[in-house]
Amino acid sequence: MSLRDIKEAHERISSVINKTSIVTSHTLNEITKSSIFLKCENFQKMGAFKFRGAYNAISLLSPEERERGVITHSSGNHAQAVALAAKLLGIKALIVMPETAPQVKVNATRDTYGAEVIFCKPTIESRSQTTLKLIEKNDYTFIHPYDNDDVIAGAGTAAYELLNQVKGLDMVFAPVGGGGLLSGTSITVKGINSNIKVYGVEPKNVDDAFRSMKSGRIEINKTINSIADGLLTNLSERTFNIIQKNVDQIITISEQEILSAMRFIWERMKLVVEPSGACSLAGVLSSQVPIENKKIGVIISGGNIDLNEFFNLIQERIVN
Amino acid sequence: MSLRDIKEAHERISSVINKTSIVTSHTLNEITKSSIFLKCENFQKMGAFKFRGAYNAISLLSPEERERGVITHSSGNHAQAVALAAKLLGIKALIVMPETAPQVKVNATRDTYGAEVIFCKPTIESRSQTTLKLIEKNDYTFIHPYDNDDVIAGAGTAAYELLNQVKGLDMVFAPVGGGGLLSGTSITVKGINSNIKVYGVEPKNVDDAFRSMKSGRIEINKTINSIADGLLTNLSERTFNIIQKNVDQIITISEQEILSAMRFIWERMKLVVEPSGACSLAGVLSSQVPIENKKIGVIISGGNIDLNEFFNLIQERIVN
Repeated sequence: MSLRDIKEAHERISSVINKTSIVTSHTLNEITKSSIFLKCENFQKMGAFKFRGAYNAISLLSPEERERGVITHSSGNHAQAVALAAKLLGIKALIVMPETAPQVKVNATRDTYGAEVIFCKPTIESRSQTTLKLIEKNDYTFIHPYDNDDVIAGAGTAAYELLNQVKGLDMVFAPVGGGGLLSGTSITVKGINSNIKVYGVEPKNVDDAFRSMKSGRIEINKTINSIADGLLTNLSERTFNIIQKNVDQIITISEQEILSAMRFIWERMKLVVEPSGACSLAGVLSSQVPIENKKIGVIISGGNIDLNEFFNLIQERIVN
Repeated sequence: MSLRDIKEAHERISSVINKTSIVTSHTLNEITKSSIFLKCENFQKMGAFKFRGAYNAISLLSPEERERGVITHSSGNHAQAVALAAKLLGIKALIVMPETAPQVKVNATRDTYGAEVIFCKPTIESRSQTTLKLIEKNDYTFIHPYDNDDVIAGAGTAAYELLNQVKGLDMVFAPVGGGGLLSGTSITVKGINSNIKVYGVEPKNVDDAFRSMKSGRIEINKTINSIADGLLTNLSERTFNIIQKNVDQIITISEQEILSAMRFIWERMKLVVEPSGACSLAGVLSSQVPIENKKIGVIISGGNIDLNEFFNLIQERIVN
């Protein structure tokens, strides 16, 4: 894969995606003595960068594949991304979710974005078997959340826009879970200018990418204890190879660092971002890489977070 | 006052304020069958439009007045606006607050923006007397939150930017509390094009502006039971006269409508807005004015809301 793939993906999807804005903060720049540019994929359609990859991959399907429909398993942003992309392209979408998935995610996927939700037991085996059976029976095309070149190329278009919106960046930070976003980002950035540093940021509690880069082979997460619920997955061979080649360093951050960065973005910048979406800024603020006087691109991956409890608190205060 | 005052204020403050961005939403436009443009003053310095007026008023003081310092009483956005404007201009600021003011507001005003906070008893008498005594003793200049032409002119610069950022608007919605923002907005809009409708939006529970427009004289709020804590004050003669002349209609909305609009802005547009800041959109969505096929400017007045409880909920979930 190369920059060319990202450019082609961008041409393919640019009339449908939101060209998300860049947000800056005087306070943040003062604190860090640097110039930080947030690429706000929380403003993307369905609230996360995932829409870029899903739409790119699904729009590349043949007429026969479109006719049969697509399937994926996810209870996160990828589910909503596939559901919305399929809806916009007039294609049937099935999403396999554990029966324990939060109702808010089921509703968004089914009611807002019109996909068919299939429930499975909350185990990896049940998830795979349920999905496989449906594919065997109906020949649906499986859209993997990151182990797919077209999904990676779509994800890379966020960095492609960022580098066109902000000239002269010294470094770019992106979160890493399964590695789709970081793969697409690093191909894009290094393809445009190999002198720009690319950093992947990962919660310490799910540091498979960090350990994989050290050992030179794919390591597996030992827990899934992170509030960054979009980053709990492991790298695939595909994303590991791309990251090994293109990424300068993986930075790990504590749960407290994630929460602090998220709180800064909410309180001072007035943006709703999810914990995973705040990780890239947490990496910038973690002092593991010298950033003084640098021009820094930061990909904010998404803004989907359950606000029920918060709005219930306000609801209780209402006097009619 | 006229458009000329707004233009002069804008020239005076434009190098210091944030030229806040316009945010749109496909979903919102689809739902309402209109084109809605949010002028995001939650992105303004210190998080609300109030900075515009405070900075304009304080920068117009004479060298002698600057030497002596400024004072105001507020525990809301105006306090932080005066504190920050004074700090940036190198002027001493005193803020009189009730001793019952939330710690988060005291801290922001004192620690973040460097003003001196003077506590008073939580009564209007104590507040006035404390302020008056300090003025008598030290000859500080009082910066009123809205009953002041320079504050109103500064507030009007948000609409001035909006009308330059978005051409061809049919109507503009702004919230109304004491009436400073609505006064400045209506002078600006009608000065640029008297065909553009201007609507003020107010919580039903504090509907003094609505009743004042009906009766033709200043009416007083009977309760302060609204979650829109920036809109609890009454009009002054000054703002009432401007609003009577320039505003087409005052729209009142329920507490539930405020919460729904706020929730839409948070969940779907990923913006942190305070309840008062969501009122203008609640007015648009209230179906009291025909909006189909209209191009609508909506002033989102601010984004300062206490997020302690929310982040405490997330903090509890962290596993280290």
